[in-house]
Amino acid sequence: MNQDTICAMATAQGGAIGLIRISGSNAIGIADNLFVPAGNDKNFKSQKPYTLTFGRIFSGEEMIDEVLVSLFRSPHSYTGEDSVEITCHGSPYIMQQIMQLPIVNGCRVARPGEYTQRAFLNGKMDLSQAEAVADLIASSSASMHRLAMSQMRGGFSKELSDLRIRLLDFTSLIELELDFSEEDVEFADRNKLCLLADEIESVISRLVHSFSIGNVIKNGIPVAIVGKTNVGKSTLLNVLLNEEKAIVSPVHGTTRDVIEDTVNLGGVMFRLMDTAGIRETGDEIENLGVERTFQKLDQAEIVLWMIDATNHVREQLEKFSDIILSWSKRKHVIWVFNKIDMLFDSQKEELTSLLASYTNKNTNGIDFVFISAKQRLGTDLLQQKLVSFTYLSAVTSNDIIVTNVRHYEALTHALDSIRRVREGLQTHVSGDFLSQDIRECMFHLGEIVGEITNEMVLENVFGKFCIGK
Amino acid sequence: MNQDTICAMATAQGGAIGLIRISGSNAIGIADNLFVPAGNDKNFKSQKPYTLTFGRIFSGEEMIDEVLVSLFRSPHSYTGEDSVEITCHGSPYIMQQIMQLPIVNGCRVARPGEYTQRAFLNGKMDLSQAEAVADLIASSSASMHRLAMSQMRGGFSKELSDLRIRLLDFTSLIELELDFSEEDVEFADRNKLCLLADEIESVISRLVHSFSIGNVIKNGIPVAIVGKTNVGKSTLLNVLLNEEKAIVSPVHGTTRDVIEDTVNLGGVMFRLMDTAGIRETGDEIENLGVERTFQKLDQAEIVLWMIDATNHVREQLEKFSDIILSWSKRKHVIWVFNKIDMLFDSQKEELTSLLASYTNKNTNGIDFVFISAKQRLGTDLLQQKLVSFTYLSAVTSNDIIVTNVRHYEALTHALDSIRRVREGLQTHVSGDFLSQDIRECMFHLGEIVGEITNEMVLENVFGKFCIGK
Repeated sequence: MNQDTICAMATAQGGAIGLIRISGSNAIGIADNLFVPAGNDKNFKSQKPYTLTFGRIFSGEEMIDEVLVSLFRSPHSYTGEDSVEITCHGSPYIMQQIMQLPIVNGCRVARPGEYTQRAFLNGKMDLSQAEAVADLIASSSASMHRLAMSQMRGGFSKELSDLRIRLLDFTSLIELELDFSEEDVEFADRNKLCLLADEIESVISRLVHSFSIGNVIKNGIPVAIVGKTNVGKSTLLNVLLNEEKAIVSPVHGTTRDVIEDTVNLGGVMFRLMDTAGIRETGDEIENLGVERTFQKLDQAEIVLWMIDATNHVREQLEKFSDIILSWSKRKHVIWVFNKIDMLFDSQKEELTSLLASYTNKNTNGIDFVFISAKQRLGTDLLQQKLVSFTYLSAVTSNDIIVTNVRHYEALTHALDSIRRVREGLQTHVSGDFLSQDIRECMFHLGEIVGEITNEMVLENVFGKFCIGK
Repeated sequence: MNQDTICAMATAQGGAIGLIRISGSNAIGIADNLFVPAGNDKNFKSQKPYTLTFGRIFSGEEMIDEVLVSLFRSPHSYTGEDSVEITCHGSPYIMQQIMQLPIVNGCRVARPGEYTQRAFLNGKMDLSQAEAVADLIASSSASMHRLAMSQMRGGFSKELSDLRIRLLDFTSLIELELDFSEEDVEFADRNKLCLLADEIESVISRLVHSFSIGNVIKNGIPVAIVGKTNVGKSTLLNVLLNEEKAIVSPVHGTTRDVIEDTVNLGGVMFRLMDTAGIRETGDEIENLGVERTFQKLDQAEIVLWMIDATNHVREQLEKFSDIILSWSKRKHVIWVFNKIDMLFDSQKEELTSLLASYTNKNTNGIDFVFISAKQRLGTDLLQQKLVSFTYLSAVTSNDIIVTNVRHYEALTHALDSIRRVREGLQTHVSGDFLSQDIRECMFHLGEIVGEITNEMVLENVFGKFCIGK
């Protein structure tokens, strides 16, 4: 375990205030060397934990800044070690000057994520909680934030640890049987083990499946905007993006024809894909460029099929509705009738009755909306439809959702192992095989919370953190 | 005086840690609404000042983050008001979420510099100290930092306030005389007043003169690199800039021929100006483009006159040395002989003896250095010459130096007034004229420390701050 004292700038440069963290067994002593509390009688070293002390930082004779210094004593700190936080003026010059002082006094500059790594190594949190800290800092929507927070507060760690302990009990009994192998005893109740394996399979399987949702929450729910040229797709895209322009992050696709942008609507991140592809070049659907758009459609969870409500709607529906309805089996499709501001009331009624016939034809009904992207009519309703999309509405803050690829992989392996255990039980394999599969399942469950780990895994996990965390 | 409670993000977005400040009479109550300390028995409101409390921030039912909250009680805080600082995870999303909470609870977003403005209004610091806070945050060299720090710690405030009080005593006596004008009494001792006026003139005059140094420290000591084309000026510029490339900030001049860059050498900021102008088009000096370079030379405190040591040095010196020596009266000129790596030893000796003759001719001697900018030979020595330039070496950390244009203007006006007071004393003007000039001098001295101020001045001063300070 690292026992050297580390320091880092924990705030970005450029603010009014800067924060420099020192953590390790010498943190308080090192800070005491640099820092002179205001008031002659005060001794920094003897301050109580969780207090702030006002005073001055000196480099030799020269005063660098007036600062507030927080003091934390092991184990009651973020890292579990003695820690000091210096709150200084946020000038890059001052922060650089102050950073040099602990280094001169024997500190080492912290590696990315080293504070959280120490918190993990000192038992302040398990590995999946530590990973959630990075997710929390990176989260940019309410749903991402909620998932990271739930994971940071324990998430599935407790559940997995409990299952692991119960598996351990069984495998101990099975391994005990092996010691008495000549006597053909059965300490481990195979029926109970079978029930436990069922339970574990069900838990893990649920978690594995939650990954697709977790992934979508992390990266945005993919929404493809599909339709002929000039039906108003780009206008709609801009309307949807403009709503929260401040937190839009453009992600330009490699294909020049597909523009992707993420947007936070009602706390949910969406990845909007403007497929500018479909052009009518003849009667055959194959020639319409649909093929190319299909690639994006495959990624999409929601398809916005845009139709120009002023332009031969009946013909358009006749031509495309079959293919659209076939998509509906795999995707949530919303039929978006645009340019509705240019229709007379009679035309709207006609359109509505036309849609009624399609709704009747399709057992699940169709989901449609009338909008004018240009006039921003009905676009709020469309947004609400997106946000309330059942795919996510099933997710509550109590659901445990896997968002981390490392967890997903470990869970997949654990699932394989536990299935082998169940099969083994059914085919009455010998105790040593059973034990091996149980141990493997336990290993993968242990990987997630960090009970089983190695340098490479730790480097992978904490290397993704920012410095100072 | 503002009594509403304000909040602001005090750290730049993008770090591991974010800090949100709340200040005002409701700061603690508002924080108490959002924040649930860890440990059920804890009550945030009843925490002692200068303590940190760990706990959770909630938006309604939803937990936003695990945070540390500092508590300060009036008047023992930066602003002098009740204050709370929330240290949260540095995610932009979390910081935005947390910022919304005090606002929903009745806080207002702070204007730039409003924390420091409140500190000023609550008597925690005078106006010139408040201005020093902004300078401190902006400082990017040791000398700038030292000046800002000295000003923040009081600087000339105390001295000016004392002089102002002594002037007030005199003018009160003079104004008392006016009440008894028919009796021709003299309460105010004119000789003592004359001595005081002398003293004030000397103090202010020293401060006014220090501004040229202060300005240079703030904006960098202007150094012009002058010489014919192809003598290696740009190479030298790059060598000097490369030394500390990380803190170089390019300031491109409006003239295409002059490139300016600032660089921190040994804790002093230099503004290097590469004048790419001088070209030989004939025998007459007027045609050499020197004229245009003169504009830059006028701004320069130091001139680096570069000479290609391999190229007809004797002729170059004969042609230019008179004009260069004439510059030496107003500027510090360093003769920089470049490309020294391409000379034989015998040539170097010849050059040295040639220079000896110039040194003898010139009463002050000449300052020269042999370098190879390309090979980086002698460039360290040149840097040392720049840093040790006597112009600044006279400045110690105890010197009071005016860096602020607003102070400079007020001091200039105060100097005018006090000179009028002295003249008035010599010409025995009447008490009411004397009193008016004394009052004017007091007014301008009062402007500096903010004893006399108005909304516009405050807006000007604090509008330049960043938000959260």
